Parts: sequence; C-alpha cells; structure tokens
Amino acid sequence: MNIDRIRAAAERLNGHVRTTPLLHNEALNAIAGRRVWVKAECLQHTGSFKFRGGWSAVSALPNEVRKRGVIAFSSGNHAQGVARAARAHGAPCVIIMPADAPAVKIANTRALGAEVVLYDRATEDRDAIGASLSAARGLTLVKPFDEPEVIAGQGTCGLEIAAQAAAQGITKADVLICCGGGGLTSGIALALEADAPSLTARPVEPEGFDDVTRSLASGQRQRNAAMTGSICDAIVTPTPGELTFPIIQRLCGAGLVVTEAEVKAAMRAAFDHLRIVVEPGGAVALAAALFHPNEITGEDVIVVTTGGNVDAAFFANVLTESA
Amino acid sequence: MNIDRIRAAAERLNGHVRTTPLLHNEALNAIAGRRVWVKAECLQHTGSFKFRGGWSAVSALPNEVRKRGVIAFSSGNHAQGVARAARAHGAPCVIIMPADAPAVKIANTRALGAEVVLYDRATEDRDAIGASLSAARGLTLVKPFDEPEVIAGQGTCGLEIAAQAAAQGITKADVLICCGGGGLTSGIALALEADAPSLTARPVEPEGFDDVTRSLASGQRQRNAAMTGSICDAIVTPTPGELTFPIIQRLCGAGLVVTEAEVKAAMRAAFDHLRIVVEPGGAVALAAALFHPNEITGEDVIVVTTGGNVDAAFFANVLTESA
Repeated sequence: MNIDRIRAAAERLNGHVRTTPLLHNEALNAIAGRRVWVKAECLQHTGSFKFRGGWSAVSALPNEVRKRGVIAFSSGNHAQGVARAARAHGAPCVIIMPADAPAVKIANTRALGAEVVLYDRATEDRDAIGASLSAARGLTLVKPFDEPEVIAGQGTCGLEIAAQAAAQGITKADVLICCGGGGLTSGIALALEADAPSLTARPVEPEGFDDVTRSLASGQRQRNAAMTGSICDAIVTPTPGELTFPIIQRLCGAGLVVTEAEVKAAMRAAFDHLRIVVEPGGAVALAAALFHPNEITGEDVIVVTTGGNVDAAFFANVLTESA
Repeated sequence: MNIDRIRAAAERLNGHVRTTPLLHNEALNAIAGRRVWVKAECLQHTGSFKFRGGWSAVSALPNEVRKRGVIAFSSGNHAQGVARAARAHGAPCVIIMPADAPAVKIANTRALGAEVVLYDRATEDRDAIGASLSAARGLTLVKPFDEPEVIAGQGTCGLEIAAQAAAQGITKADVLICCGGGGLTSGIALALEADAPSLTARPVEPEGFDDVTRSLASGQRQRNAAMTGSICDAIVTPTPGELTFPIIQRLCGAGLVVTEAEVKAAMRAAFDHLRIVVEPGGAVALAAALFHPNEITGEDVIVVTTGGNVDAAFFANVLTESA
C-alpha cells in the first residue's frame, strides 16, 4: 500500500466522486477554542466516504471479473458505496447486511439496485452466507477496509484535505478521523504523509469501542469486548485491520475517545452551525474537536464528518433531547 | 442594475463567500421525473445566500461611511448576512428584528456581534425605530432586497450556477428560486441572462404568499393579504420590490406556488438524500421541482435551497410527522 495506489485511485474517481467542501464556522471555533475545519464527507454520493472506496475497488477489477458481480458485507455505508459504484459500472451487486441495520440504510441500498441479503447478527454466520453466494455466482468480495483498493479510494479524501488545507494556509494541524476498521484513517494518513506531512492523522472512536486507540497505546491489535450497543453503528468493528493497523501505527497520532453524549452534541452543533446532517458514527471526530480540546495541539484542527445516513426518528430525538 | 455590477460584487466577494456545491441524487431524480440539481446555499456562511448581499453592500460603502455602522431590518437571514459582513469589515451593526423571529436566528445574529433591537410586528413601527437609530448614530440602511448592491451580491449565486451548470453539461433548464422580495431571483436572472441565457429563472413561493407569482401573471405588483401565518417566514414580504420586479418581469418565467405539506416533504427529502438542513422558506423551490413536475419543462431542473436556519424543534417535528 502506497501513495501511488492512492493517486491511481484518484484518477479513476475523477469526475465520479464529489470533492466535498471544507466547512468552517465561528460558533464551532468558539466552542473548540481553535479553528475547526470540517471535511463534509456526509455530502459525498451515498452520504458517506465509503463511495470512494467502493468506486476504487469496483473500477479496479478486470472487466470479465466485474461483470460477474461484486459482494460486500456491511452495516450500511460501505453497502451503499459499493452498490452505487457497481450500478454505474453495470456490475451486479449483492449486499449481506445485518437485519438490525438502520432502515434508511437498507432502503437506500436497495434503491441503488443492490440485492440485499439480511442475516441475524446473533445467530447466523455472515461469512458462510457470503461464501456460498460468491461460489455459486462468481462474485468478487469487496472488503470494507482491509483491502488495498478500498484504502486507496478512501485515501483520495486525504489528497483533497491536503490541497484544501494548503489553500486555507493551514500549515500544521491534527486531522481527526472517525475510525472503524481503519480504511479511511490509513488512507488519509498515507495521503497526508505524501502531500501534507505537517498534518497528523488521528483516529477517533466511541467509548467502549476504542480498539484502535487501545491498539495504538499497547502496540498490538486489541479487540472490542462487544459488537453491539453503540449508537455509532457505522464504525463498530471487532479489531483494527491487518493491513490498516501497521499504516495507522506508523503514521498516526494517539487515538481519541468520545462519549455518546458528546457525539449527540456534535450532531446538534453540525445541524445548528453547518446545516449538515451527520450520523453518530460520522460525528465522533467533530465531538473530539469540540469537547476534547486539551488532547489536541495547534491553532487549527481538521475533522472528517464521515457520513450522514441516520434514521429520521433518531435524528429528531437528538434535536429534541438537546433543545 | 446590470451584469457589470454583479461581476464587480463577485470580485469583492472572492475569497470571502463560499462557492456552494451543486448537489444531485438519484432518489430525488426519481421523485421529480427529471434530473434535479440543488444549489445548496444553506451551506453558505451564516446559513443562507443573504451573506452574499450583505457582503456586497457593506464592502461597497466608502470607508468613512462604513465605520459609522450599518442597520438592517430582517426576520433573520438578512440580519445574519449583514452582521457577519459588518463584523468582518470592523463596522458596527444594528439589526431591527421582529420579536417573534425564530430563536435560532436571533441568537445567531447576536453571536455575530450585532446589536439586536426587537419590535412587536403588530403594534410597533419598525421604520420609525430604525429611522431614529440611524439619525442618532449615522448608520447606513442595508435594505434586504430593493438595493442595487444587495441584488448584485445575490446575483453572484447566479454566476456560480451558470458555471456549474456548464460544467455538468446542462444546456437548458428552469432555475427555481425561493422568492421573497426578489433580490436573489432578480440577481440570478441577470447573471443567467449574461452567462447562461438558455437557463430560465423562475420564482417559487408558498401558497397564500404568492405576490410575485400573481404580479407576474397580472403584469402589476400585487400585495399579499397577510404577513404572518406561513412556516416560510424567511420569504414572506408584502409585495415585490420596486427595483426587483421589473427585472423579474423582463427575465423570469412564470412563478410556481407550493403548499406547506410540499415544503415539509422537500425538507425531509433533502435530509434523507442530500444530508443538508433546509429551512421552510429555503425549501419551496425544491418542493416545486419534486412535486410540480408538469409546471416545469426540460430534462434538468436547477433549484436553489436558499437557507438552513431552522429551529431544531420545528425540524424535529418535520422529521417525525413524515416518518
């Protein structure tokens, strides 16, 4: 995995991916005590950065492989990213999804033309379901993060951050990234190493699901005790990736961990001051920037709001609770 | 009022205004039956296009006039636009605002450093209050729409639309604009006449407050029967402007009128599919694109979502009602 692969992905994504804006707002700066720059990947196609990795992976396949189709396991955002990329390439797409995923994610994935196969997280083996389907139809698995072309696609977000930070005159800053398996974090870290070495990528996770932060602290890949029970469903993974963790370990600063209350307050702040919709898992980095100022250095902080696919009822509750 | 004044405003705004994205989404296209392109001015600084006009007006003042300060009457978005522009120029700013304006707009205006003077819409004469303050302090009035430099500033949104439509290969389309007094509509219409004459500006209004639509139909400036009772508070004005209406009459297509139910459904669609926050008055154009397909021509339609300053409780209700 290296920067050349990210630049190659950027060429394939050019004209298909949205260059998301880097937003800022005085009210957020006042809360954080420094300038906050928000890379709004919730405005990306399919509502999350996952479209980058999906497009990168699907577009990298040889034609004869791609036309047989792709398959992905996902709680939602990766599913939508892969589905939209597959449809644009005329490739069949099967998505294996837990039955308790947010309704909006299931509906949106189907609307993007994918065949959605639901399984029970507690009782069924998703890998067995996927293996059986793949063998029968010749589908290619697109992993959610531990896959070079996916990391390369997510890394294109880092190339944009490097260019946008330079345009704003930001010379040194932490770049806080909502982190699940580490595909986005490792991809951005590689892009920054090449194009903006004075920017430091740092993973952010929800309390109780901080496997990457603990892995960085201990030097060895740690596991989460649970896989359910977080509002941040999009970024709950069992352990850092085999490919992503060594990159994160080499390039990233320490992880940050935020509470669910901080996540909801960050979602509310993004609503009030940026007029964007951010899902819980996509708000942890903003939560860290706003509410953990002493764990960050420098006059500027860049955060990636990674997704905006949230059930309306949940979002309404966040607005009402914080009124 | 002409295109040169808009281009001059664009030069003054350069580097201070955000070039807002032109978003699109397959789900919206499916609802509308044609391609829908959303110019997301709710992502503008202060959450609405009004910052363009505010910056244009304040930056056009001679230094010695500007330093005495500016004053504006506004239900909120114009207030925030002028306040932020004034603060950036080091100019004092007084905003005269109805006491029943949304709380978020009052709070945001104060947070932008303005002195907010509240009045009762039913019993007090805002013009008398403003005139007295202006005379005492030498403040310059920045009108919300019937003011050449304000129209010029709003017109810069039209220059961006022309360029972004060309980049997408859109050769012919209606451009639907949420319309109150007509500053944005007339400014965009002038910009399109110069840079994209095959795009047609069209005003959109809420039912019961359709003074511009009726004025276009009758050829004479009509008045609304009421000034209250709409959820679209940001675009309720008594009658089209003296300066804006002749421009609208010369350049715009027929007006469109949408219901409150359609406005709420458009807000929900923007939440679900674009992950942006749009206020009621900022959603009427999207509502027309989605729910009045037979009143629009062509394969593409461009809409301006003009603002995103909405009370959280109201937004939560929209999400809950439409669940």
